[in-house]
Amino acid sequence: MKIAYLGPEASFTQLATSQIFNDEKLIPKSSILDCFTAVKNGDVAKAVVPLENSIEGTVSMTLDYLYDFKNISIEAEVVMPIAHHLLLNKNNSDFDMIISHPQALAQCFHTLEKNYKNSARKDFSSTAAAAKHVAEHPEKKIAAIANSYAAKLYDLKILKKNIHDFEHNHTRFIVISLVKNSLKLKHKILGEKTSLMVTLPEDHAGGLHQVLSVFAWRKMNLSKIESRTLKTGLGNYFFYINVASEWHPTISENALEELKSIGAEVRLLGHYEEYLLG
Amino acid sequence: MKIAYLGPEASFTQLATSQIFNDEKLIPKSSILDCFTAVKNGDVAKAVVPLENSIEGTVSMTLDYLYDFKNISIEAEVVMPIAHHLLLNKNNSDFDMIISHPQALAQCFHTLEKNYKNSARKDFSSTAAAAKHVAEHPEKKIAAIANSYAAKLYDLKILKKNIHDFEHNHTRFIVISLVKNSLKLKHKILGEKTSLMVTLPEDHAGGLHQVLSVFAWRKMNLSKIESRTLKTGLGNYFFYINVASEWHPTISENALEELKSIGAEVRLLGHYEEYLLG
Repeated sequence: MKIAYLGPEASFTQLATSQIFNDEKLIPKSSILDCFTAVKNGDVAKAVVPLENSIEGTVSMTLDYLYDFKNISIEAEVVMPIAHHLLLNKNNSDFDMIISHPQALAQCFHTLEKNYKNSARKDFSSTAAAAKHVAEHPEKKIAAIANSYAAKLYDLKILKKNIHDFEHNHTRFIVISLVKNSLKLKHKILGEKTSLMVTLPEDHAGGLHQVLSVFAWRKMNLSKIESRTLKTGLGNYFFYINVASEWHPTISENALEELKSIGAEVRLLGHYEEYLLG
Repeated sequence: MKIAYLGPEASFTQLATSQIFNDEKLIPKSSILDCFTAVKNGDVAKAVVPLENSIEGTVSMTLDYLYDFKNISIEAEVVMPIAHHLLLNKNNSDFDMIISHPQALAQCFHTLEKNYKNSARKDFSSTAAAAKHVAEHPEKKIAAIANSYAAKLYDLKILKKNIHDFEHNHTRFIVISLVKNSLKLKHKILGEKTSLMVTLPEDHAGGLHQVLSVFAWRKMNLSKIESRTLKTGLGNYFFYINVASEWHPTISENALEELKSIGAEVRLLGHYEEYLLG
């Protein structure tokens, strides 16, 4: 089975994907759009893309494509702690410049200010590209911020582990495919989840409140809600909603029916489990 | 007055910033965090950062920093149509590779597939960096996707205008500072807006619904709502909420009081106007 992921090789998405699919063929794609397109065209069986707090992709793009690609569903959500390390070429012992993705540099800002204030910093298009550059240029006095997978792939030494500022820095990824399925993994289950895409007929006062009432009086707990502008113009919105509570079929179907009756378009993106990766 | 913006030079953020502040000194910063830090430290008077649908930054980072930097307020929101052009070095007439930021390449996907299917594509860290690379390498057969500002700055010829797939592609930016102020601009006003940061005491069923009820029965229309995970761990959320309707002082103050009485932490990020840039 082929699995696409947001690359390049040694990206945080690959680190997550390799923990979900041990024995499958993993294929790097250069954008979130490419991952969705590969699934849609049947080039791959599934794809793994970042959903929240990633340093590679953006929440908004993944949500937009979930809206655009009407046949794509979510099979699982995985949460992975993000650990940044300072990596050096094995032939070197010091550096005067640190390179990485701008968001990785930002996530290590306080540590860098405290311990490596005199080193210049330079943006790279990804943490993995920065690690590769350090591997290929032993003549340069540079260090990269990247993950443990990149250290191993490019045979770099870890000069300092866990240099990220916040301990509780997690990235959420989703597994997408063309089938309605709940993927069973051997990782720790954090809970079950149902994702809905709701489009309101017009932007009227209290419309969103009306939508949420449908869930509230049924005691269905919402763990995430996000409004996004439709590409058709300003002021048109869709909502990405996660229901965290148990998905009781009758109550839930009634809720969806009620949403439709007030004029909302509702798409069930998936009913699946959330796992914690190591 | 010094104004920071998310760089590099010729980024879409600079294109927006130059339309807001004609006569001020604009200072590029390499990350959204650097923009917030420059405002906090008083190095600049204000900063302009992307809030939504940008190809440079992510919504989530801007929201996270609005949460983290407790003294920073919003003075204005501006909406700018995003137009991508295909740019070539003036000494060249053809190309076999197109370079740009991966999100810009994605936003032009269908046009590229239709008209330039045989050209390879390569990721760059920004559209501006891609344009600069084309300017500096007349010996390479490459074209860049970037904005009109980059074409002008790097003296490139526009091979094809408006190659983006969706016509209604806008990016929202906010002007941030340490003062509570509503910035007056000469651009078209789209409406007034109030932004709130609401943190719920615990993740209980219907909690968000309770928050929204406070606005709904006062007929205060919400134009944006977004939940974000707190960095303190999984499952803790804050909400970024935009009230689109008129901010009637008494009613609104009562609403905020009511939110506090149900245990929510509320921060007023600003009461300001939304403008449309050219």
